[in-house]
Amino acid sequence: MNEINLGLYFLSEFVGTGLLVLLGCGVVANVALAKTKGNAGGFLMVNWGWGLAVFMGVLVSAYSGAILNPAVGIGLLLAGTITAPMFFVAFAAEMLGAIVGAILCWVSYKQHFDDEPEAANKLGVFSTGPALRSYGWNFVTEVIATFVLVFVIFAFADYGDIEIGVPGGLGPLAALPVALVVVGIGASLGGPTGYAINPARDLGPRIAHAILPIKGKGSSDWGYAWVPVLGPLAGGALAAVAAPALLGLAA
Amino acid sequence: MNEINLGLYFLSEFVGTGLLVLLGCGVVANVALAKTKGNAGGFLMVNWGWGLAVFMGVLVSAYSGAILNPAVGIGLLLAGTITAPMFFVAFAAEMLGAIVGAILCWVSYKQHFDDEPEAANKLGVFSTGPALRSYGWNFVTEVIATFVLVFVIFAFADYGDIEIGVPGGLGPLAALPVALVVVGIGASLGGPTGYAINPARDLGPRIAHAILPIKGKGSSDWGYAWVPVLGPLAGGALAAVAAPALLGLAA
Amino acid sequence: MNEINLGLYFLSEFVGTGLLVLLGCGVVANVALAKTKGNAGGFLMVNWGWGLAVFMGVLVSAYSGAILNPAVGIGLLLAGTITAPMFFVAFAAEMLGAIVGAILCWVSYKQHFDDEPEAANKLGVFSTGPALRSYGWNFVTEVIATFVLVFVIFAFADYGDIEIGVPGGLGPLAALPVALVVVGIGASLGGPTGYAINPARDLGPRIAHAILPIKGKGSSDWGYAWVPVLGPLAGGALAAVAAPALLGLAA
Amino acid sequence: MNEINLGLYFLSEFVGTGLLVLLGCGVVANVALAKTKGNAGGFLMVNWGWGLAVFMGVLVSAYSGAILNPAVGIGLLLAGTITAPMFFVAFAAEMLGAIVGAILCWVSYKQHFDDEPEAANKLGVFSTGPALRSYGWNFVTEVIATFVLVFVIFAFADYGDIEIGVPGGLGPLAALPVALVVVGIGASLGGPTGYAINPARDLGPRIAHAILPIKGKGSSDWGYAWVPVLGPLAGGALAAVAAPALLGLAA
Repeated sequence: MNEINLGLYFLSEFVGTGLLVLLGCGVVANVALAKTKGNAGGFLMVNWGWGLAVFMGVLVSAYSGAILNPAVGIGLLLAGTITAPMFFVAFAAEMLGAIVGAILCWVSYKQHFDDEPEAANKLGVFSTGPALRSYGWNFVTEVIATFVLVFVIFAFADYGDIEIGVPGGLGPLAALPVALVVVGIGASLGGPTGYAINPARDLGPRIAHAILPIKGKGSSDWGYAWVPVLGPLAGGALAAVAAPALLGLAA
Repeated sequence: MNEINLGLYFLSEFVGTGLLVLLGCGVVANVALAKTKGNAGGFLMVNWGWGLAVFMGVLVSAYSGAILNPAVGIGLLLAGTITAPMFFVAFAAEMLGAIVGAILCWVSYKQHFDDEPEAANKLGVFSTGPALRSYGWNFVTEVIATFVLVFVIFAFADYGDIEIGVPGGLGPLAALPVALVVVGIGASLGGPTGYAINPARDLGPRIAHAILPIKGKGSSDWGYAWVPVLGPLAGGALAAVAAPALLGLAA
Repeated sequence: MNEINLGLYFLSEFVGTGLLVLLGCGVVANVALAKTKGNAGGFLMVNWGWGLAVFMGVLVSAYSGAILNPAVGIGLLLAGTITAPMFFVAFAAEMLGAIVGAILCWVSYKQHFDDEPEAANKLGVFSTGPALRSYGWNFVTEVIATFVLVFVIFAFADYGDIEIGVPGGLGPLAALPVALVVVGIGASLGGPTGYAINPARDLGPRIAHAILPIKGKGSSDWGYAWVPVLGPLAGGALAAVAAPALLGLAA
Repeated sequence: MNEINLGLYFLSEFVGTGLLVLLGCGVVANVALAKTKGNAGGFLMVNWGWGLAVFMGVLVSAYSGAILNPAVGIGLLLAGTITAPMFFVAFAAEMLGAIVGAILCWVSYKQHFDDEPEAANKLGVFSTGPALRSYGWNFVTEVIATFVLVFVIFAFADYGDIEIGVPGGLGPLAALPVALVVVGIGASLGGPTGYAINPARDLGPRIAHAILPIKGKGSSDWGYAWVPVLGPLAGGALAAVAAPALLGLAA
């Protein structure tokens, strides 16, 4: 691992997360904003859109092994797969990528943001929000959903001798299972909070929402912002700690 | 097979079935309960959610070869792939996993259970119920649907030299076909009974429904409970008996 | 090829087509009949249901290499992949399998057939019918759609050194592409006629509809019955003749 | 590469793009035109239909390595994968294939075109149009969406040692990822312009619309025609130039 170029590692996570967020926020824009071709396309369309956003994000971040998510990163750090410098470089890249991806989504849907009458729908394209607000329960849901994500990724990596976060670790054949996992988690556990399950995916676009000159935008809902950051981090960390025992590898 | 650690075998089936039921019941919660993001998302979303729940359940239960379903287990027992102790250990683990998975689903959707006005929708998240009640016809439908499940799994295993229920038997490449089979059976044969096709998936959550302090819950419908247990067991056993002849392997 | 046991060949095509039709007609029943869980689930659900029906049909008919469709069979016959006796044995097995599959579908959805008020919806579960009746144009649509099916299958088989209709020719890895092809043809070319693209899939269930004691059933629409038989046969034959030239293999 | 037969190269691109456009325009016809079986089937159905159209187009154009899109072609030309003669031969073949594919789509849905009252829906089957007209923003959206397409394809090709546009470069295993990429881009970035992301896919059918004797057809909207031609070409060229640096291959 001493051959890793941290500059390219940063670039790889930046590009992958940027694409992930452009496409992920994009499908929400398509379903939620006024007068789009996909308006009211349904939650399953959102699930597929996010899953395939992950698919493409993984495909373009081969160099870094496609972490793309600090909740996965913290799990890899605790598991010893990546070092602290790698985690922090990836984290910074993911945040910056998520901000840039969200800006590109806004550019792609510029006229529909302008035409959309509801400020809440505009924020909803950028960041998640709870269906029923209760920070405690929303936190619990994000912990459980992210636990599932990181736990399944760990199981899959163990199965297939795949190392995420390491150059060449995740190839095209690995991108599809990870994408399907995200489709499934969205469909099954996305109902209460809109499944952030990734701190960068939620906080980066929220920052973009705050700084962009979006016509008729409302609050960036900072009161909720800690839930989709700390919930996924807690879930990812728990999964990393629990995975060896739960997968029968600790015995 | 004398190297199998029955404790880890139990753990593996417990974890896999727990995840399967958390995600499977989760997608029904998302579609059926009030005010979720996926409310009224459609039956195809339920089909994908359950299929991908199986996908993830298989991925995390590598040690035991991912039975996850007593109807599959009874088929493997009759086919001689697993022993009676393995079957019973798996059965107990699947039941316990299904109960815990259902509890975690309730926790994930806690506020939406509280807000849902219809008691029938709450039970529907946990266990299946007939669209038109007629124990005889409902039983027949469950027998046919589970026959298809176990028969196709047997054919697929035979094709690919895969041994389900045995350590290392079902890898990531096998998880996808099994998931698609469940998507397809749900779409095609799930109309009359909601496709239990798995005794643990139905009875475990029904027990959870009975014991959990769910706000405004109604009956657990124990009168119907035998149908999604005995129907799948009968279908799985029939498939195991018929498969060699129907697949042209008995000649 | 002189080792082929025509009895097992018949059995394999019978079982595969039976499962294909049970599941394919099943998804239409789920979407079309009254009070099912999947009622009004949408055309995309029908497309996935039929595609995954093919997926499972292929998985269970390894012995015969999974023809399952006389329009594919006539193409294989013209291409010299299978012999005339193999074609006719497969054809008979496919017809019988389709009749039995349709009967099993009726049994699976018995109560919903009884409750459905519209006779046309009942026939629609069994056999295809035109959205706008015009035998000439309906025939053209079936020719084009089946040409696409057989042409793509030929291209795919040529790509992957796969021999359909021959023992061991189509394995699990081949089942998925064929399934996706059927999903796509349904979505893209199924609008005018409901995409029979398989004479056995249409004629077999129509015979079942004619002989079964279905409550409140109407006409079996024999006037249209030749379209989804001759159209697919013509399309399959054309594809087999044109494929070598169009794929650049004839030069 | 001196062994490439440009006649067969033309044929391969012609056949692949023809099938792509027949199926891609077909799913729009199914969703948009009056009285089809898939009427109002939703945007996700359109996304799957186009994605699987690409899947099949790739499968039938093995000889040329399945470019099928001048925006991909210009990228391959700039990257040095294909030569200028290959690019222009492919371009001509793609245009001709797209025209013929659109004509076949019109034939397949002839009666539904005749019955459709809205001229705009008829043009919409052939070519894309903006949800909110603003040539500048529409152009930007097409640039971004096509950038994503070509960038991901380059990443994927680099990953898997695949050479698009070269005989044998794209096999069945590569067809699926490309198809999923198109499903995802459609869902995520198709909202504002209907995602042409392919000059031939848009201009060819627009020419067909202009010359075909479509009952009650309106304008072919030539004023917009440059956007889905120049936008994708610009996006594809940018992606080819940026890919080595963004993928960490330029260092």
